[in-house]
Amino acid sequence: MAEFSVHILGCGSALPTTYHHPSSQVINLRDKLYMIDCGEGVQHQFRIEKLCFGRLVHIFISHLHGDHCFGLPGLISTLGMLGRTGTLHVHGPEGIERFLAPILDQFCQRMPYEVEIHTINASRHALIHEDKSVKVYSIPLSHRIPTAGYLFEEKCRVRHLNRAAAEFYQIPLSEYPMIIEGFDYTTDDGRIIPNRQLTIPGTLPRRYAYCSDTEFLPAIIPIIQGVDLLYHEATFMDSEKTRAKETCHSTAKEAAEIARRAEVKRLVIGHYSGRYRDSKGLLEEAKTVFEATIAANEGMRIDV
Amino acid sequence: MAEFSVHILGCGSALPTTYHHPSSQVINLRDKLYMIDCGEGVQHQFRIEKLCFGRLVHIFISHLHGDHCFGLPGLISTLGMLGRTGTLHVHGPEGIERFLAPILDQFCQRMPYEVEIHTINASRHALIHEDKSVKVYSIPLSHRIPTAGYLFEEKCRVRHLNRAAAEFYQIPLSEYPMIIEGFDYTTDDGRIIPNRQLTIPGTLPRRYAYCSDTEFLPAIIPIIQGVDLLYHEATFMDSEKTRAKETCHSTAKEAAEIARRAEVKRLVIGHYSGRYRDSKGLLEEAKTVFEATIAANEGMRIDV
Repeated sequence: MAEFSVHILGCGSALPTTYHHPSSQVINLRDKLYMIDCGEGVQHQFRIEKLCFGRLVHIFISHLHGDHCFGLPGLISTLGMLGRTGTLHVHGPEGIERFLAPILDQFCQRMPYEVEIHTINASRHALIHEDKSVKVYSIPLSHRIPTAGYLFEEKCRVRHLNRAAAEFYQIPLSEYPMIIEGFDYTTDDGRIIPNRQLTIPGTLPRRYAYCSDTEFLPAIIPIIQGVDLLYHEATFMDSEKTRAKETCHSTAKEAAEIARRAEVKRLVIGHYSGRYRDSKGLLEEAKTVFEATIAANEGMRIDV
Repeated sequence: MAEFSVHILGCGSALPTTYHHPSSQVINLRDKLYMIDCGEGVQHQFRIEKLCFGRLVHIFISHLHGDHCFGLPGLISTLGMLGRTGTLHVHGPEGIERFLAPILDQFCQRMPYEVEIHTINASRHALIHEDKSVKVYSIPLSHRIPTAGYLFEEKCRVRHLNRAAAEFYQIPLSEYPMIIEGFDYTTDDGRIIPNRQLTIPGTLPRRYAYCSDTEFLPAIIPIIQGVDLLYHEATFMDSEKTRAKETCHSTAKEAAEIARRAEVKRLVIGHYSGRYRDSKGLLEEAKTVFEATIAANEGMRIDV
């Protein structure tokens, strides 16, 4: 199966600690890299993880808090110094242009490539990007400022070519694309071979959902229903539930509750408050509600 | 003697590597912290080095290239989240306000403290800051954009009180400050005790000079003449002299040549190009010209 993985570059929260980096992760989908969030120090993490700067095509910012976007100026400048020529697309809620435009203007005047800024409407669930490998949808979240999660859905062929059948009917190679597209084949003597006989069922498209930062928000459940992997913030433990509410964050228990109700396959928790030296307690708490939970850590790579 | 040390947080150059961080260092002078340059990830380095955010009072930016200032937004935000109330002063060449003002406006609206931006004239050698511990002077450097080095001169009392003598003449404690200031003392019966009898010579003020980024620039020699410690960039080795010239940087040999001619006590080299996996070659090269050379490294603390 084609590569579809999530690489954690940072899973801490706003205050710096010595044990985590601010939010960022990279989706590797058929060797193209899509970044979600870009906290300070991302370019350094990128290097440590031996990811290839040249393969990065899109960056999706969840919201304009510094721990989710202050790595952008450095990363964008570095890509320029490395001689990038292909356009980089940066998507984010209202405010992304106001943040980036003056920096591009002051620091990136003579870069050999373009940065295209796409302002998304964080209050709508909508398709915001599509290429031949993936569809990316926004997920409206509830935080202190406009915030969007992102749903990645790989594009799969609904059915694959049954090569043996195609050869049996002596179908020319030039007709294969039409068959994969779902068309029947008509032989020279006018006989129709139904598409079903020439193809086999394809795999279901895999889906990955990123939900950070947000308070407990059951409204997202229909959007993320049954995803293969859900990253959900778990900033606090249940004992800090009041603090979580005040700051529009979730507890580990709440993250797991969303995963359980949405019947996702696996849950990854992250965006840990600096008060927790390790994620053990958060993970244990989440597992009491949803067993298939993983605790994110820098350098972790998870197959979707 | 009062503390006066330099703590290296980053001594790499523009492109990220896994072995160095971008430019930043902290001067610890009588327990106040003064930062010079603030590359991306500084707040994380600050935590790793167990430095106290609350003691940071002034930040001096040499020039507006990202590897010298992209850590400011994160650091400034963090100080706000930590509840700082005292004003933070940020000094830098023309462009510092254009960089910081929009970020303060977008991200730091409700911070409990003020950031005061001081635009300095990078083409002049001038006193730009003075408090009871230190005088800080700008050093005009020659780089691709306006760039200033910084000279830190601790304030020392010219003479110290000779307590034994003061007690011998039964001088009241309330008169001590005047004597330290240099005044003679007149006894009740009108006898004048010369200041020289009541004081002993003070130590010479220690001086630290930071010169990065710059091409080879002998014009700085009169300004840094005889300093106790000189940090001078040594981005390249002599074999890359042409590249150094093109990019307005110095070689290790040139840094050492400046140190030798300025008769400084010790030289620290840094701002290494990412092409050098370690600083051994750069250090060896510098030492052929100026023996008392140290190669900077993250986490290093050097007494001035």
